[in-house]
Parts: sequence; structure tokens; C-alpha cells
Amino acid sequence: MSKVVNIERCFEKFNDTFSPKIVGELNGQYVKVVRLEGDKVPWHLHENEDEMFFVVGGILDILEKDKNITLNAGEFYIVQKGVEHKVVPRGHAKIILFEPAGIEHTGKVKAEITKESFDWLEL
Amino acid sequence: MSKVVNIERCFEKFNDTFSPKIVGELNGQYVKVVRLEGDKVPWHLHENEDEMFFVVGGILDILEKDKNITLNAGEFYIVQKGVEHKVVPRGHAKIILFEPAGIEHTGKVKAEITKESFDWLEL
Repeated sequence: MSKVVNIERCFEKFNDTFSPKIVGELNGQYVKVVRLEGDKVPWHLHENEDEMFFVVGGILDILEKDKNITLNAGEFYIVQKGVEHKVVPRGHAKIILFEPAGIEHTGKVKAEITKESFDWLEL
Repeated sequence: MSKVVNIERCFEKFNDTFSPKIVGELNGQYVKVVRLEGDKVPWHLHENEDEMFFVVGGILDILEKDKNITLNAGEFYIVQKGVEHKVVPRGHAKIILFEPAGIEHTGKVKAEITKESFDWLEL
């Protein structure tokens, strides 16, 4: 059943980083929230999935092979399917992700942070 | 090509109401921004599409046949496919919508506000 999701309250419920939590599902897509801190995401790509990063706190650099993008709070960017990328927060960042339910966390690349599955955040 | 989208700046670019503008596309879904003011949305449903309402300014009441939901800024709610609903802002509200690209604005119901197509917001 659908419920009201308050984004700030979501982030009050967890402190771990690089561990996206599902907070909504629609049309085969998940809405996830995640905290990032440190340069830990490997270069990777998602062959069939576009991925949206919406910054709600802090600053996030998104690196693609041919350009660097900087997102501040209140800004989003969509990494196109097939585009190699990594993301690096400046300090601590709070992010909303939109991506297909079946997406692999770090594509075919396995790293220290890689999650095999994602849990719903208890709201 | 993807670009950085600043939500506040999107809303500085238009003042008309009930006219969603596309600001992003991913996985067959559109991200749209819309201003709402007044009780103008008819009861309607989308047979095959879930629809997400994310409030960034103001207050939005979402009415379903068996419950009323109130969203404040920073909160979202997903109306499930097949569920009859209408939305009514209290005063003026600024909303982000996530919904499939092919969705009909007010389902099969035609109203004064109904749009046949949606344009990209020039950023």
C-alpha cells in the first residue's frame, strides 16, 4: 500500500553509507535513498538502465569519461544507459536514486561497497 | 544529452498552472514539474500507470475514494495504477511528477485543464 514518504525523515532512520534503501516503487522503478561519503564507487556502467541522481544534501560529483558534473542540493542528473561513470561526494551527501528495480548496484563491477540486493527502509 | 537540472530554477521559468513540463526522461518515464492552484483536477484514473507526486513547495491534498492524503514540501506519494484520484493544492503548490512517458494527463476524463501533450521545459 502506498504511504506518505517524508525524505528528511527517511534519512533520520539510517546512517550507513553506500547502502541504498528502497522507499518507493512505481512502474517497475525503485525510489531509493542513500548516504555517500568517500571515494568508494568504482567506475561502472548499466547496460540497459538509465539512473537518476537527485541530491537532497551535500554536493555530488558525477564523473563520466568525457565530462565531470557537479550536483548541489536540489539538483538532479540522469546518467544514460551504457555510459561509464562513478560518483564521488564532497564530504557527506544525501541522494535520492531513481532506477529500474532490476538494476545491479555497480553494474558488472564488484567492489567493496557492492550490494547484491536492496531492502525497503522501514517507515 | 543529459544536463544538470536545478528544480528551483525550473520553477522560475514558468508561472502557468496545471501544465506539466518535462525536465527529464529515464527508462521510459518522464520527470515533470508543475504548478497547481485551485480545485480543477477531475476525478480520474490511469489504468496502467503508477504516478508519483513529490511536493517541493506548498501543500497538496490527494483524494482517493477511500482516503485523503496530505503532502507537505519534501514528501511524496505514489498513486497506484487503477486507483481513482484527484489532487487539490492548498493555495499554490509546486510539484515534481514521475510517470510513464505515454500517460494521459487526466486519464480518460477530459476537463478544462486537460493537456493532450507535454513539452520539454527549456533549461
